[in-house]
Amino acid sequence: MNQKTRFTLTENDIPKQWYNINGDSPIPPAPVLHPVTKEPVTPEFLSVLFPMALIEQEISSDRFIDIPEEVQDVYKLYRPTPLIRAYRLEKALGTPAHIYYKYEGTSPSGSHKINTAIAQAYYNKISGIESLTTETGAGQWGSALSIACSFYDMALDVYMVKCSYQQKPYRRILMETFGANCFASPTDRTDTGRAMLAEDPDCPGSLGLAISEAVEVAAKSNGKIKYSLGSVLHHVLIHQSVIGEECLKQMDMADEYPDVVIGCVGGGSNFSGIAFPFLRENLRNGMKTRLVAVEPTAAPTLTRGLYSFDYGDTGKMAPIVKMHTLGHSFIPAPIHAGGLRYHGMAPTVSSLYDAGYIDAVALPQIRAFQAGQLFAKSEGILPAPESNHAICAAVDEALDAKEKGEKRVILFNLSGHGHFDLAAYQAYMQEDLEDFACTDEYIQSIPDRLPQIDLDKIAA
Amino acid sequence: MNQKTRFTLTENDIPKQWYNINGDSPIPPAPVLHPVTKEPVTPEFLSVLFPMALIEQEISSDRFIDIPEEVQDVYKLYRPTPLIRAYRLEKALGTPAHIYYKYEGTSPSGSHKINTAIAQAYYNKISGIESLTTETGAGQWGSALSIACSFYDMALDVYMVKCSYQQKPYRRILMETFGANCFASPTDRTDTGRAMLAEDPDCPGSLGLAISEAVEVAAKSNGKIKYSLGSVLHHVLIHQSVIGEECLKQMDMADEYPDVVIGCVGGGSNFSGIAFPFLRENLRNGMKTRLVAVEPTAAPTLTRGLYSFDYGDTGKMAPIVKMHTLGHSFIPAPIHAGGLRYHGMAPTVSSLYDAGYIDAVALPQIRAFQAGQLFAKSEGILPAPESNHAICAAVDEALDAKEKGEKRVILFNLSGHGHFDLAAYQAYMQEDLEDFACTDEYIQSIPDRLPQIDLDKIAA
Repeated sequence: MNQKTRFTLTENDIPKQWYNINGDSPIPPAPVLHPVTKEPVTPEFLSVLFPMALIEQEISSDRFIDIPEEVQDVYKLYRPTPLIRAYRLEKALGTPAHIYYKYEGTSPSGSHKINTAIAQAYYNKISGIESLTTETGAGQWGSALSIACSFYDMALDVYMVKCSYQQKPYRRILMETFGANCFASPTDRTDTGRAMLAEDPDCPGSLGLAISEAVEVAAKSNGKIKYSLGSVLHHVLIHQSVIGEECLKQMDMADEYPDVVIGCVGGGSNFSGIAFPFLRENLRNGMKTRLVAVEPTAAPTLTRGLYSFDYGDTGKMAPIVKMHTLGHSFIPAPIHAGGLRYHGMAPTVSSLYDAGYIDAVALPQIRAFQAGQLFAKSEGILPAPESNHAICAAVDEALDAKEKGEKRVILFNLSGHGHFDLAAYQAYMQEDLEDFACTDEYIQSIPDRLPQIDLDKIAA
Repeated sequence: MNQKTRFTLTENDIPKQWYNINGDSPIPPAPVLHPVTKEPVTPEFLSVLFPMALIEQEISSDRFIDIPEEVQDVYKLYRPTPLIRAYRLEKALGTPAHIYYKYEGTSPSGSHKINTAIAQAYYNKISGIESLTTETGAGQWGSALSIACSFYDMALDVYMVKCSYQQKPYRRILMETFGANCFASPTDRTDTGRAMLAEDPDCPGSLGLAISEAVEVAAKSNGKIKYSLGSVLHHVLIHQSVIGEECLKQMDMADEYPDVVIGCVGGGSNFSGIAFPFLRENLRNGMKTRLVAVEPTAAPTLTRGLYSFDYGDTGKMAPIVKMHTLGHSFIPAPIHAGGLRYHGMAPTVSSLYDAGYIDAVALPQIRAFQAGQLFAKSEGILPAPESNHAICAAVDEALDAKEKGEKRVILFNLSGHGHFDLAAYQAYMQEDLEDFACTDEYIQSIPDRLPQIDLDKIAA
């Protein structure tokens, strides 16, 4: 067909600044509360966990933040990432829609996660920190931070949810190859872990628990060890903006502009990364792109959760933030998209959804895998189970455009590859996958699961 | 440091023609012999296994061969691949050398193999073939051909060496996800397989045996099924020339020219792909780049094998070719670089090595993994065990340049990623790896293992 397929930017096109939606958002950020006092936290409290540069970004209203040259130098190893027109997928669907995907899986860690891992490792390093802790579920984030820490010669302890640690030995070995230590959480290394093991020696772990362990280690290190998180926090979303900034240039090369931009959401970082630069164009330049966050029906934080104050972790050690939540005690069903199994949602994504600036849809995992396999067979890339949710929503858009006889320009974020998720594909092909949904009873119980917050006290 | 790191070509820079070293090589190709009559084969004989377009390429002396537009369209999904200056590796080694690597692991299949898989599937498809067979060892080739066949809607049966089939379930699932059928060889689907199973029901299989099974199925299909091979044959080397052609442009962007070009060799395809365009510049334009083929000490085909006529497979069903060989009955030691475990070497590589146009070195696997981990920690990419051999040779060159105080420009082919090889990295880190070498006794026994060929009869 000899049409332009791949829109390639050069090294000079890597963004020099991150974009911060809080500089344009009409919604002021809600305060972050101390998990014990339930009063607004001070930067000093947060500085136990994070270096000051990241705390400043967390609360910044600057529209653009310079990317340090040292971070740009590492971005050059894999950015800009490709934007590709999915001609074969369009043909398979028989749709008049034009489908584009941004592929973050060419990064060393295989997903978008490394965009913030590099930045977080760098800011910790220049503030004198030599050692980080974090948690990981499926392992995408732990892998990314392991690579980033090896670049800056920093130590890293990863608390990996025990059932994933056992199910995905390759992810653990990958982190170890880059020099990280990986522990099956709950461990006997923390009070939180020991208490859980005393209660249930066979506890399979959870993301909320692993967060609590990693946070505890940092909090008790007398400032020697900091904690790093791969999503949810605003500075993470800021770092991911490189994705959307590159897409704006690449869509321009394609001489098109997206009618709809799609990303999957767990904590919200890859969706924000691709969507917020387009939201800026909506807010400031009158564009009308629909921004669609895709979550699993097994953890329908936006579509069925409450917009309320809640703890970031199960152990109530992390700060309380205002977000769409299913309750910090929510135990997500064992879907294969481990990166989407979180009870909450980035406060920034939550507030913009609540105010109607972004849309959301929840999809079941079997349809997501079906779309993922169709995509693989058409485009050659095996997607991560998380990314399959974005693909499925893009396919639905393309079929809707077909039904309506509309040309529609669809852009989605292919956040990572599925090379470590083949057991999930096998389960799908053997028809061993189940769909999960929250019961109405559970949804009705959420208010009782949330912390009691004195809103007057916060306002004062 | 703000130096140029990544040399990015655009879609327009994808080569429009493959390069055929046989148009420039001073050494005429030796004849290919029938495995039973031991006389030169006819194109008709080969046409049982391959479509005529590929047979024509196999014997062509045209310097350039047009890449069909339909193949270029698929190349656009992932080509051009990046060329990257390894600043961090240089720094870790403290070398004045400049190290560049061409990274083929960003392709959908994760290695260079797909460059020829697409072409072979395409030529079979347009000649009316709907079904292919092949063998695979470690799984890189089977994965690549599975993806290519899904693009052209063709059926594919892959005979996968049984021990790899059992050790690497993820590779098998990957092929199945793209629609291929994958069988543990020896199978009960062929005479060769049944005979082997009758002799030894627990036979772990070998690449030579899997080739025999795949060839048998094609040979007995009355022309309905063709056979496809991922290395060794000359048309495969031609297709891989896109790697080196892109490198020539990218080195030009870097304003440097390589003193040495390095690739690992099993059958010889990724090495030829990067090296032969540079060999053309040596032969025609007076350049003096050293071309170094790196093999494992466990299968030292070039450095210790004989340059002689031998069968391409263990079962003596494939044609006899003149090549560097350890004997078709050679059983390689179980090194993790499965792609380098072959008894022979591409005839084109063999003849050029024999005539002194290319160099070779054999390296043990533990040093190769050591270099691979150093590379991963420096550059972020986890290399395939095969590629670790090329990295190790590049590191040796860089350290030699350091010792001699020379600026040396080193280019190597990072042929693929190691996402499916993490068990090997674990074994390395746990010091469970062994080095292997051929014994002198074995090497001395090679002449007795080769077929008797009447050279006068061939000449006539």
